[in-house]
Order: sequence, then structure tokens, then C-alpha cells
Amino acid sequence: MAQGPRAPDAHSEVDVLIIGAGPAGLMMANWMSRCGIRTRIVDKRGTKIFNGQADGLQCRTLEIFDSFGFGHRAWIEANHMLEICLWNPDPQTGIIHRSDRIPDTIPNISRFQQVVLHQGRIERFFLDSISEHSKRTLKDVPGWQGGIKVEHGVMPVSFQFDESLADDQDAYPITVTLRHLSEQEATPKQSATSVNGSGIQDGLFRSNLSPDDTQELLEKSKKLREKEGGEETVRAKYMLGADGAHSWVRNQLGFKLQGESTDYIWGVLDIIPITDFPDIRMRCAIHSESSGSVMVIPRENKLVRLYIQLTTTENEEGGKRADRSKINPETILASAQRIMRPYKIEYRYCDWWTAYQIGQRVGDSFSLKERIFLAGDAVHTHSPKAGQGMNVSMQDAFNLGWKVASVVKGTSNRSILKTYQSERRRIAQDLIDFDHRFSRLFSGRPAKDVLDEEGISMEEFKNAFEKGNLFASGVAVDYGASVVVAKSGDSAKQGDGTEVLGEEKLRVISSQAFASEVKVGMRMPSFKVLNQADARPWHFQELLRSNGTWRLVVFAGDITEPAQKARLDGLGEKLGAATSFLKRFTPPGARYDSVIEVLSVHSAKRQEVTIFDFPEVFRPWDDGDGWDYWKIHVDDVSYHEGYGDAYRNYGIDRARGCALILRPDQYVSWVGDMDDYESMDKFFSGFMVEQPQQASEAVGAEGISRVSLKDTDDTAIPATNGAVVGVAAA
Amino acid sequence: MAQGPRAPDAHSEVDVLIIGAGPAGLMMANWMSRCGIRTRIVDKRGTKIFNGQADGLQCRTLEIFDSFGFGHRAWIEANHMLEICLWNPDPQTGIIHRSDRIPDTIPNISRFQQVVLHQGRIERFFLDSISEHSKRTLKDVPGWQGGIKVEHGVMPVSFQFDESLADDQDAYPITVTLRHLSEQEATPKQSATSVNGSGIQDGLFRSNLSPDDTQELLEKSKKLREKEGGEETVRAKYMLGADGAHSWVRNQLGFKLQGESTDYIWGVLDIIPITDFPDIRMRCAIHSESSGSVMVIPRENKLVRLYIQLTTTENEEGGKRADRSKINPETILASAQRIMRPYKIEYRYCDWWTAYQIGQRVGDSFSLKERIFLAGDAVHTHSPKAGQGMNVSMQDAFNLGWKVASVVKGTSNRSILKTYQSERRRIAQDLIDFDHRFSRLFSGRPAKDVLDEEGISMEEFKNAFEKGNLFASGVAVDYGASVVVAKSGDSAKQGDGTEVLGEEKLRVISSQAFASEVKVGMRMPSFKVLNQADARPWHFQELLRSNGTWRLVVFAGDITEPAQKARLDGLGEKLGAATSFLKRFTPPGARYDSVIEVLSVHSAKRQEVTIFDFPEVFRPWDDGDGWDYWKIHVDDVSYHEGYGDAYRNYGIDRARGCALILRPDQYVSWVGDMDDYESMDKFFSGFMVEQPQQASEAVGAEGISRVSLKDTDDTAIPATNGAVVGVAAA
Repeated sequence: MAQGPRAPDAHSEVDVLIIGAGPAGLMMANWMSRCGIRTRIVDKRGTKIFNGQADGLQCRTLEIFDSFGFGHRAWIEANHMLEICLWNPDPQTGIIHRSDRIPDTIPNISRFQQVVLHQGRIERFFLDSISEHSKRTLKDVPGWQGGIKVEHGVMPVSFQFDESLADDQDAYPITVTLRHLSEQEATPKQSATSVNGSGIQDGLFRSNLSPDDTQELLEKSKKLREKEGGEETVRAKYMLGADGAHSWVRNQLGFKLQGESTDYIWGVLDIIPITDFPDIRMRCAIHSESSGSVMVIPRENKLVRLYIQLTTTENEEGGKRADRSKINPETILASAQRIMRPYKIEYRYCDWWTAYQIGQRVGDSFSLKERIFLAGDAVHTHSPKAGQGMNVSMQDAFNLGWKVASVVKGTSNRSILKTYQSERRRIAQDLIDFDHRFSRLFSGRPAKDVLDEEGISMEEFKNAFEKGNLFASGVAVDYGASVVVAKSGDSAKQGDGTEVLGEEKLRVISSQAFASEVKVGMRMPSFKVLNQADARPWHFQELLRSNGTWRLVVFAGDITEPAQKARLDGLGEKLGAATSFLKRFTPPGARYDSVIEVLSVHSAKRQEVTIFDFPEVFRPWDDGDGWDYWKIHVDDVSYHEGYGDAYRNYGIDRARGCALILRPDQYVSWVGDMDDYESMDKFFSGFMVEQPQQASEAVGAEGISRVSLKDTDDTAIPATNGAVVGVAAA
Repeated sequence: MAQGPRAPDAHSEVDVLIIGAGPAGLMMANWMSRCGIRTRIVDKRGTKIFNGQADGLQCRTLEIFDSFGFGHRAWIEANHMLEICLWNPDPQTGIIHRSDRIPDTIPNISRFQQVVLHQGRIERFFLDSISEHSKRTLKDVPGWQGGIKVEHGVMPVSFQFDESLADDQDAYPITVTLRHLSEQEATPKQSATSVNGSGIQDGLFRSNLSPDDTQELLEKSKKLREKEGGEETVRAKYMLGADGAHSWVRNQLGFKLQGESTDYIWGVLDIIPITDFPDIRMRCAIHSESSGSVMVIPRENKLVRLYIQLTTTENEEGGKRADRSKINPETILASAQRIMRPYKIEYRYCDWWTAYQIGQRVGDSFSLKERIFLAGDAVHTHSPKAGQGMNVSMQDAFNLGWKVASVVKGTSNRSILKTYQSERRRIAQDLIDFDHRFSRLFSGRPAKDVLDEEGISMEEFKNAFEKGNLFASGVAVDYGASVVVAKSGDSAKQGDGTEVLGEEKLRVISSQAFASEVKVGMRMPSFKVLNQADARPWHFQELLRSNGTWRLVVFAGDITEPAQKARLDGLGEKLGAATSFLKRFTPPGARYDSVIEVLSVHSAKRQEVTIFDFPEVFRPWDDGDGWDYWKIHVDDVSYHEGYGDAYRNYGIDRARGCALILRPDQYVSWVGDMDDYESMDKFFSGFMVEQPQQASEAVGAEGISRVSLKDTDDTAIPATNGAVVGVAAA
């Protein structure tokens, strides 16, 4: 069942091979589609889309989706969660009552708020995005005109790694044998869950209560091997194991998950609820007096997900692996009914159900020689109730993708790849610490009073919920010092222990004070600015599309002040010079903004400035398109969307301005003085690769002056102007 | 070349036949797709999509798109226009300079602002929408499971109307013969416009400088008739002629366009400009001293449209039909260069060009016996520069569609159909008056000083522009008194002269003072409210999806006040009764909100109320879905999007509230007291059709009480509760 872009060859080569087409694998493929990297992505499962598997999308995840152009699709289809209602036993009567309300997403931390959406829809957005963009970016690569396609029913069966080639930029040190499965093999069996055979889907095949089925698939596969197209060998420069908690790639590498399971078992029901519980469309944390807890997650299409603590009646084996035969929708619902009484809850339609045991584990290593990487559930497992699972997995790959792409393309050296483990393993460690604390508070029995030391204080629970919300939003991520994060301090301590500083002589330290609210190591916050040329308001993040480019953002200050204008002109001259880092690190023939894009935001009045007040490097010239009107912005009031007040919110001096360097994933690398060209150059020199010089550089510079001066002779075309007036020549 | 859902039959029957698949025709088909009406839409042109044909989308048009679920697609892809820059000759030097800036869309009149987008994209949104929704609504109609498809290369050739059947609800009085053209016939010839054969597309085939080609197509067609599938006969209940300025339908009916042409000839260029003109990404009105005027319309994909006045050099025949051989991109550009000097403008890429002569004309009739209607360019022509063409055409069909659909479905009687001509012919008359004044001001020579009486005062021009902007936004439309607009005054005078009041004894007059800013006859303004059940903020218009339903909106006031709560309960009792208009006008078996949806917005604190404080009719029960959580809203502060302050903005008393009736197209029919049930009933009785009574009414009422009361017996299921607990029965 070969569903890939190519029929299986005996041998083929790719830049990147991705094992697993869940959220982490798809995010990786999505990055590759933007960067034009020859990529295959395979998944042992068939194409059938299953119910369930919905998850919260953090506001940071929505920011990332938006940077790829499909944030609005999730935003429109998802259910929005605005408020968390806390229900606890009344101290007098023991009957549950609403004791508190808190906003679900902390106001003003993002332009998005947390939402919930079916994972199948999210996969759809990825598939559309991967297909559209890979066809565009790979259209000139022989054999890849069809772009990147997800290949289902394909699984790796053997693997070799030639360590001697690990540091050779152009080598293919990885060799993997892939087997093409039959449709039947690739479709997981789902438990018969319905008493009347109506076939509600359950998620046990992906749950941790279900055994790893890799071996089973492998054995079945032997019989059908020849019939289904057999095996092929793929050589790859890089490989990502995004193949879930039972990761085949992780097992091949001999890496381990470290951590432990707890005794708590939870059931999950996705139902259209029939209830008199008044907060059923709110996210709720319900602690009953002695029957356990329920979390309510309202979903799209009238569905509600209930996470229901299963009491020891369902877990007779002493808190170890549960007997799945005793868990079914009826027993899970009965638990919910006990917890939520005196309110009634029942359903006529159940969309999906599952059960799981809470465990928190992190992989001991995320990478083999920075050639093979692991992401997502393959390297961290935790409870789903904090709504982190899919988000953290996608963000792993969002962190990794641009790094691998820039090394494959030869614009960055391999030193940046070590930052993946440093940054993301640390996040995974923080995540399971958070999850451990949160799960304990959520699974415990409420304290009867202050003397009840075994019970959980509901005040403590609320505080943890509020604090956890910031963590869960994804915007609190703060990457440590590294070759791509110019901050002070101990790189190993700020990360997972890996050393990622690069050459000491090229280390740059930010001057955080120039932009006190643009924290180095954190994602760039977003406030509204206006395009100078057409007055359109944009959220600043909307300018930071995920296309693999770095950004130098010049907050130019008040350029109507002559001294500040002189500083801007001085910077413009250095940036525009043939020896500038903008030129040195951009491959010959590539567009001026393909490696480093220069954006600017000034603070003068919009109506007193035009783009022609800026040096040419801030509004680059193109022979076909003329000036680039989409680089210069202003922090001024808009007609319809108020005032973003960007300088103030970013903590930037309106007169003097500042400069920022932003990574391709919107994280802040460097903050410094507006015209500190030397620090900028040194920073990029730390990991970027010098490109051959462009012979025709002088011609481009000449072109820039073509129509930049007014000329009162309006009919004659200056001799230096090569543009064809009227009809296009080509 | 049969592209329709069915192969051509000798004879077939449809509810609605639409001639012409331009913006008006597509809007009509789109309405039909939402309402499940058997519809065919044919266009004599082939499927090829042409460049050019971009147009501004008014904010009202975007509101309409949003009501159909694709507003965001236009909003994301379009170029947004924020500011208009006025350029005039300097009184001293005669050189053009920027004399003024005004916002393009008046702030706060809509949640959208005017944008520009290629018509091909807009057609794509319609086609996707028609396909998706017609498959859903027609899935149970034999022969129509494929939904509604636009049939290109199909033109009407003869026509019969049986006037004796006009008033028979179920009759098919219209018979049309359709001919299926060959691909070649259906593709219009475009002028060879490029000196080097590079094939820039021009729009002259659709311009009014181009002769009507219907006859030509017809003659060519004779030869190929048999080869291409020949002819078929279609009988229709209703027909829409949306077939453009040379409308075949209008000609068959013998209706005339009344009005006149002017001498002004304008050229249009869609180019990627290479220029030093600083406002090229703004909408600009440039008046030169003596070379004419240019309007600049910045577009998507770096394009800019220039409307360029062509001086008499290009128009030697004395202002009559121009010699098209002398108009080409080079001569048009040369005119622009003369007008815009001392700035330079040229291009390397020209996407499209055309030329047209300004004319303002309105049809003498929009309808034959309310069975055949005309819309769009078929009944009004005017200059394109005010950005009105596509908008007014689509809004014609937006006005008509729900009326025809509700008559076909048997929920409304035929009296409402007369309001189409009354409402839309009046709008067309207002439009050409506006366009006439505006074109004169734009085409004239600027006055040299106050004594220059032949010249145009630039102050007067600016005032007209600002005033025109409100008109052009589309939100100022104010429909006159009629059977569906309960306002006082003379119905004929408020419309186009047609009498549309219906039965005098059923006439209702609004009490505008209950909601002073919700003007009867105008579209419902939009402010933010929160869903009571989940606290999500919605723009009120987002709740008013275009699905053919009427809305009764109850602004319930402060329902924590006992007297107000009593009024609400009283209203709820009447609305919930078996004799209520909600029941009488809803067909048996149809969903409770399929004809009239009840929405409410209260003004108490959100956190002090639950949906169970409202009578059941405001949160209807469904046996499968439980309570409807999406009907009750509150005017309160949100966590992330501020405070909509809806009551204040609508001019409604927070304590006492009010009630509104909104048409399916969001126009306000009636404003009155919150519990004035009698006026509501009388209003709907004026045009709605009584449906057979539902035998099982009592069962539904019983169902409502199922889980509406708390019961401390939490495990036993009450005997009256028929819901299957646990797994779904079906």
C-alpha cells in the first residue's frame, strides 16, 4: 500500500525522514514544507480517522498555527473555553457547590485564548498546509514536484547509523528499511465497547492501558509482505522519531523514559450531555466529598469531554495496570454520576471513550549525535488533563524543524542542533514536575478542614490552577543561553545540562534594558503596529510568519529627530554594505529577505513620514516589483483598531528605540541598542555559514537608485532605467 | 457540454432557475443552497477564470459574507484600504500635492472595513459554499443529492410565461429552453492587446465599450447544436435574470434601462507599479491641474488598480462610443503619467486592463408578476469607481433569496415578494444619483480659485467623498414600510412607488423608542454580547447566520428584578403555548428554530444567572441534545475582549429591555416592548402561512420537564425519563 509521492524504490535518499504522523511528526513535516526540504513522513497506522483524541490548544499553539497561516481555521472551528468553575463540597452539607470562578486563559498574555478541537481537524490543517507549501517550495526539485505526502501504512523495520558520517554536512549516515503494510494490518483493532453493537469508538488502542502492538503488526506483516509492495531502503541525513509512547525509534536507540506511574486511573467520555448541571459548558474542576473528581471540558459540536476519576472499585489490582475488561462507558458514567450528584448527568450520544493511568516520564536523551531526534510522546508522557499533550509535542517539532532545515540548506552550521535537547528536554522536565503536582491535587480527596492533613486544600488547588494556567498557556517558555539565545548565565543550568554556547569569542550578551518587556529567550509578545505605506494594523506576530527566516527588527525610534535619523542612516549604511552580514549569509541569487529579514517599527507620527525617509535596506528594491512596502511599520493610532502602544508595552524608549534579533520560531535571541551593528554581526557569525560572494552585487545596488529620486522630466525615461515602460518585455 | 448535476433532459422542473453566474446569480444560488431549494444556475460563459474584475467589498458585503460563513476568507486574502489621500494641484505652482487624508471606512459603522479582492476569489468562496451547503440541505431530495452546481456554457434561447399560473403557489409558470454550448463558443474572444504577444488579458469583452455578443453566440451555436448535447426544456416556479448589462432575460421581458451616458471615458490598469509616488498603497483621488484625474486602488498581491481619465486625445468622436482600437495599456499609462507628474509611474507587470464610458441607468421594472426577477447589472449600471458594482448586485440577490425560498417552502405567502422591487429599485435609484454627483466631481477639472465656476471645488469634492463613504459602505440602507418592515409612513414613497403594505388590519407599527439605535428598516448593528452558558463573546451579528430563519430577539433586561422576571415568565408562557406564533408557523416535524429563532440578551450580571432562570422556550429542549445552550446571552464584561456595552449602544433601557424582530437578512422589522406578544403575533400573521398542527405537541412539552428539576435521588432514573442511560440505543 504505497501512498507516498513515489513508488517504493529499492533505495532512495531524503534529507529528512519522519517516523510517525501524529502532531509532532506533522509539525516537523510542515516546517519542511515551508523550507523546501526533501522529506518523507511515514506512519504505521492506516488512513482511517478516529473519533476522540481531542485536546486543548494552548494560546501559544494557536500563535504557532497562525504563523503557518491556519490559526484561523482552528480558532473558528474550536470550542472556546473562557472560564474555569471550581466545584467543591460545601463544608457544612458536603454537597458540591460552585466555590470559585477564574478566567481560563490569563487575560493579556496572548492574542488567542485556549480552545478545544478534535485532533482529526488539526491533522487536516497540517495535511492541507504541507501539501500546498511543499508543492511550491519543492517545485524545482526533480522527483519532488508532487511535494511532501504523508505515507500511511508504512513502518520502519530495521535501522543502521554510520557514526563516522555524523559531522559530515552532506552525508547520509542513517539507513532505514521501511515495510509497506496492508490496509488490514495498518488498522488498529478497537475494543467492542457497545452492549448493542452500535460501535462507539474507544481510544484504548492508543491509551497506556493498551500494550504496544508494534510486534504484532510486524509479525502479521511478514505474511503479507510480498503482496503489499514489500520493503524499501531509505538513506536520510536526518531522522525524527515522532512515533509515540511506544516509540520504535527510541527503542532502536536504546534510550529510556525515566519516571513513574501513579495509582490513579481516569476514564474519559466524549458525550452530548443531558444534564441539569448549570456549568456544563464551562471548564470545571469538580471535587466530590469522597467519590473522586471530574474535569469537564466543553467541546465543539455540542460535545463535552469528562475526565472521571475511577474509584478503587474499578481498580481492584492494587493500583497497577488496570483490568480493561471492567472499564466501559457504563462504569465510567456511573462514577461521574456519583461525583456530580445531586445533579444528574446522562447521554444518548457517546462519541468516544477511553481510560488511562497517570504516569510522568521523560526521555534520558532526545538525540543521537544530532542526526536522529525524538519528539512528542516518544520522550515525555504525562496526564492529559492539563491540556498539554498535543501542544508540547507539536512545540518540540516547532523548535526542531527550522534548525534542521537551516543546516540542511547550508545557511547554519550544526552547532545549533544541540539546542534542541537543551531547550526541549528542559521543558519536558518542567512539564512533568507541573503535571505531578497538579495531578496529585486533582486526584486527591478535598480536605474537610484545616486539620485534615491528608486532604487537599481547595485554596491550594485554586492557587495551583491559576499558576498552572500560565504554564499551560505555553507563553511562559523561557529558553536558556545558547548559540542562538544571547543571554548571560550558565547555559547548562538554564537548559537540561547540555552545553550549547558555541565559541566563547563569538558569545554575545543582550542588553535587556533596551526592551525591558521583550524577554530574551521567550517568544516575542504581540502588540499592534501599522504598516507605514498603507496604514493597515497588524499584530506584530502576524509579521513573523514561519518561513525559516531570521528577523532583525529595528525599533527606529523617532526618526523625525535629526540625531536619531542620523543613527538610522548610519545603521542603514552598514546593513546595506557588501560586507554586511545580510549579504554574507544570504546565498547568491536568493531573495534579500530569505535568510534574515529586516523589519522596522518607528515611533514618529505616521502621517509625517514616508518609506522614503528610511535607508534603502529597510524597503528593498526588486526589479519587477519596485519597492517593498511591507517592511516598515509605525507605532501609531489606527482608524478602527485603537492604539497598540507597542513601544510602551515592549518597554522600548520612544526616542532612542532598540534592535532585536528574532529566531525563525519567534523566540527572542538578542536585544540591544538600535545601531549596535557589531553585536548583530557577531551574533549571526556564531552559527551562520558564509556564502560565496555574489558577482553581480554592484548591479543590484545600482538598481536601487532607479526611481528613488523625483525627476521633473516626467516623460523621458532616464538612461539608467532599464525598466520596460508599458507592456512587460517578458 | 453539460456540466450540471444532471444530464440534459428533454424536460425537467426546478423551483428556481438562475440565468447568469456572476455575483448576483451566485448570491441567489447561495441562498438557495442554505434553504434547500431545487435550483439550477446557468451561465453562457465557459469556466475559464479571467484576470481583472477586482472590486471593493463594502463593509456591509463582508457582514453578509460572514453571515454565510466565508467572510474571513475574503478578509484574510483581500487588501485592506484604510485611508484615502486626496491629491490636488497646489494653488501656487499647479503641482499635485497631498491636500488631505480621510479614513476610507467611517470608524465604528461596522466590524469590517472596506477591502479589495479579485472577483475570481469571491466566486470561489460562493462555489465552495453552494456546493457544501446544497449537498447538506438537498440530501433527501431525489435527484438532487449532488447539490446545486453552476452550469457553464449553457444559455437560454427561448422563454414562455403562463400568466394565469402566476398566483398559484405550486405552479411552474415559466418554461425556458436552454442550449448547451461548445467550449469554444463559451469562451469570449479577448482583444489582442500586447505588442509582443505576451497576452495580457483585457476586460473589453465585458466592458460597455464592447457590443453585446449574445446574438453572435447564438448564431455560432446553431452550427454545433447537435454535437454539443443540444437543447433542453426547463420548467421553473421562479426565475432570476442575473445576466448582466446586456441581460437576455430583461430583453425577453421587454423591460428597459432608463438613464444616460456621459462623455467621460476612463481606462483601467491593474499593474505592479514601479513608482516614487509615496501614497501608491493608499486609495488616492488625484486631480491634476488640466490633465484629468486618477484614482488609485491598492490591491492584493502587490497589484494596484489605476482608474485613469482619458483626455479627448483618446476620444476624438465627440464623447460618444469610443474607438477601442486607440485605447491600449500604453495610451492609458501615458495618461496616468501626465496626471501624476512630477512623480514617475511605470510597470513591468500588467495583470489586466480595460476602458469604459460612464453611464447611469436603472431598470423600469425589476419583476414580472413576482415570478421572474432581475438583479445586478441587468437593472442598474453605473461607474465602478465608487466600488459599488459587485456589492449592490450581490445585495440585490441577498434581499431576494430568502423571500423566494420562504415562499417556495410554504412558510410565507407571496405578498413579501413585492418588497424586492420596492426595496432594491429604490436603492438602485439612490445609487445612480450618488454616482452621477460623484462622477461629475471626480471627472471635472479642479477650480483654480473661488471665481472659477466651471471648475470643481476641492472642498466640495472632499465633502462629497466623506458623505459618499457612508453611502458606499452599504450600512446606510434603510428599507421603507412594508409587510416585512413595521414602520410608519407612506410605503410607496419610502420605496420605489410599489405598494407593499399588505392587509391594513394586520399592519404593525414599531415603537422605535424602545431601542433608539436599532433603526427599523436598517440592518441590525453589531456589538459584543456573551453567551450565558459558556461566557464566550460574540459579535451580535455572528448569531444572525443566514439560514433563512427569522429572529425574535428578546432583550430581557435585568431579570434579577422580580417584576422584570415576572414579565419574562409571562412572555415565555405565551411563546411556549400551543397557539403561539412560534408553533403555528413552524411546519410539523421541523426544528423549533427553523422558521423563527428566539434569541435573548439580558442585562443582569452573568455570574448571578444561569440558563435555568429563563423560561424553557428561551433554551429549548431536544431529546438527543438536551438543553440548547446557544440562545441566551448577556451584556456583560468579557475576560479578553472588553465590554460590548450592547444595551447602551442599541439605545435599550437596561432595566426594562425590549423586543426586536429581525428578518432573515438581518434587517430590523419591528421594535417594541419586551412582552408585547400581541404585536409580534400580528406582525408574523401578516405574511406567514399557518401550518398544520402537530399531533404530538404534548409529548414535546412533557419532554421539557425531564431533567429540569434537581432530584436528590441521584441514581434512580425517573420513570418518565425515556433517555437511555449509557450507550446510545440507536
